[in-house]
Amino acid sequence: MIQSTHNQKLKEIRKLLRQRDGRFVAEGEDLLAAADVAGWPAIERLVAGVDIEPDVLARVSGLASGTRALAVYEERWAEVPSGPLCVALWGVHDPGNVGTVLRGALAFGAASVAIGPDTADPYGPKAVRASMGAIFSVPLVRVQSVDELPGERLALVAHAGQPLRGRTEATIVVGAERTGLPDDVVKACDRIVHIPIASESLNAAMAATIALYELTRP
Amino acid sequence: MIQSTHNQKLKEIRKLLRQRDGRFVAEGEDLLAAADVAGWPAIERLVAGVDIEPDVLARVSGLASGTRALAVYEERWAEVPSGPLCVALWGVHDPGNVGTVLRGALAFGAASVAIGPDTADPYGPKAVRASMGAIFSVPLVRVQSVDELPGERLALVAHAGQPLRGRTEATIVVGAERTGLPDDVVKACDRIVHIPIASESLNAAMAATIALYELTRP
Repeated sequence: MIQSTHNQKLKEIRKLLRQRDGRFVAEGEDLLAAADVAGWPAIERLVAGVDIEPDVLARVSGLASGTRALAVYEERWAEVPSGPLCVALWGVHDPGNVGTVLRGALAFGAASVAIGPDTADPYGPKAVRASMGAIFSVPLVRVQSVDELPGERLALVAHAGQPLRGRTEATIVVGAERTGLPDDVVKACDRIVHIPIASESLNAAMAATIALYELTRP
Repeated sequence: MIQSTHNQKLKEIRKLLRQRDGRFVAEGEDLLAAADVAGWPAIERLVAGVDIEPDVLARVSGLASGTRALAVYEERWAEVPSGPLCVALWGVHDPGNVGTVLRGALAFGAASVAIGPDTADPYGPKAVRASMGAIFSVPLVRVQSVDELPGERLALVAHAGQPLRGRTEATIVVGAERTGLPDDVVKACDRIVHIPIASESLNAAMAATIALYELTRP
């Protein structure tokens, strides 16, 4: 059992929590269970009281409240974004939003999530946590251009274009909460759509999830 | 101009950020602008460089990144929860979720948000921030019993009851993310509904907002 934070494995995990190298850290029994269910093997797995002293694990943890279990996984990236339903994130800087979109994508059966330029790393600790395990179930793809996206490309823009309605094979393209989508990205899309709201704006992850709900609503 | 953190006003604001007394603090120019638009007068307003040295304000701020403006307001509580559309929160501990529900309530035109037992304070700093200014526009009411809620009472429970469909005059009753609604609250409701999802669960605020979207979808 690991009894000191000077342990070499722990040094590597601390480093991974800051800067990654194709591997990432997930914390908490729920996330580890989600990985198991998805058949995603851990490279390293540390359970408090079994593999490591609980207080030593707590000091390595990226969570304020500490953690009871932690594991290291290999990142997985698909080659191309698959349909019939895809979400593409463009300039979404907030890792919590990225993770929340993954959770919404899993809930409403998106086939993949495309990570466009200038978007928070979905395998970063905050995004992984916000995904509530969806990170292990929704295929992720890096994209550079709208041309790579499957189906009709729908630029989601607050109060612009048409209200989003009905079922279609599409990619919902979502931008940053404040600045929205870059003009050239909007132009490259097939259509501009919005979620009809009475207020100024919705959170980006919320708008994306409602769009997924609308597109899959039976 | 205030030049020291020992200033009496700042002492009061720091205290209010921890424990309130019928007043609350909002930080950031966007939140203050939302209060102005809603016609909600500030008891105290501090703008960096105008009323207070920027670095002194930054040290008082509850935000890690500091703030450019901060104001103190009186809480407002309505007497009874109004319809035709209301959201009631029961045991929602996370203040970020409470604020996010307020934002969703404003976006989809809920007439009020009812704060049930064991729910995070909507006027706490994290909830105020997550509301993105909706705190100043959506009437809030404290409730103790489901009987107080307007319209048909719909208990939102993951994977239980009927899929939520169509427009109705209702209160959506939302519980904690993990534990859900207490049994007696579910029993006191008129109907159990869910948002159809492929995964285990949605974030409580997300589920509530999608429910509002469904109930107001034109």
